[in-house]
Amino acid sequence: SSRALCSMDEAMDEKMKQGFSSLLSDAVKNIGIQCRTVSSRGELASCPEGLAVTSCSCGSACGSWDVREGTICHCQCAGIDWTAARCCTLGVGA
Amino acid sequence: SSRALCSMDEAMDEKMKQGFSSLLSDAVKNIGIQCRTVSSRGELASCPEGLAVTSCSCGSACGSWDVREGTICHCQCAGIDWTAARCCTLGVGA
Amino acid sequence: SSRALCSMDEAMDEKMKQGFSSLLSDAVKNIGIQCRTVSSRGELASCPEGLAVTSCSCGSACGSWDVREGTICHCQCAGIDWTAARCCTLGVGA
Repeated sequence: SSRALCSMDEAMDEKMKQGFSSLLSDAVKNIGIQCRTVSSRGELASCPEGLAVTSCSCGSACGSWDVREGTICHCQCAGIDWTAARCCTLGVGA
Repeated sequence: SSRALCSMDEAMDEKMKQGFSSLLSDAVKNIGIQCRTVSSRGELASCPEGLAVTSCSCGSACGSWDVREGTICHCQCAGIDWTAARCCTLGVGA
Repeated sequence: SSRALCSMDEAMDEKMKQGFSSLLSDAVKNIGIQCRTVSSRGELASCPEGLAVTSCSCGSACGSWDVREGTICHCQCAGIDWTAARCCTLGVGA
């Protein structure tokens, strides 16, 4: 009957919500932040597509930098010899 | 019968586990780390609520900084003209 | 019959996909990036296992650093008095 189908639907919804919570908690434990460093000569360094720039490091002891177009580290001091981008993404089974 | 319900429960649990794994792998591909920079004059810069400070950048070439109260970048050198916070969060469909 | 089971399977698959999407969107809102700073004397500072190094900060105003073995901040300037690692991970219910 329609009533029976409806109850089945509700039962499945309830079951999915319960199952999802515990499965998600387990899953998040397996998802980690994974970072790597990309270095280049000069004042610019780019992260590969899909990775986020979380920070930049600069040669010449310089701590002044900005991020261009979301993915490019730019070190601002004059005569920078190298620039490094710290690039991070999510990974399953970290 | 109670036995039948039990089997149905087990079948659904099993099915959810299988489905969840493949759906989660797909979903993680669509979840990305999204970062933006917030700059301010002076020696402090704050990330908006809900975003994490992954790094700070300082004027005057300064590379010495700390994070106050979890969300505020503080550049430590004397006479800092600007401070920038790199602020990141998770986003679906990055 | 086999046909009936098959339809039930398909119905459950469809239902799980629908449910998963909405549950995942809700869940992602509850997953956040959580960061803390670990400071040490000298030129090295390490993140605890399971946390990613998103950046390093250095004493002596130094902005030149690299990450060793994935988890250790190394400040490169001579005579560094302190080093700090910015360490991040995912957390549910941020």
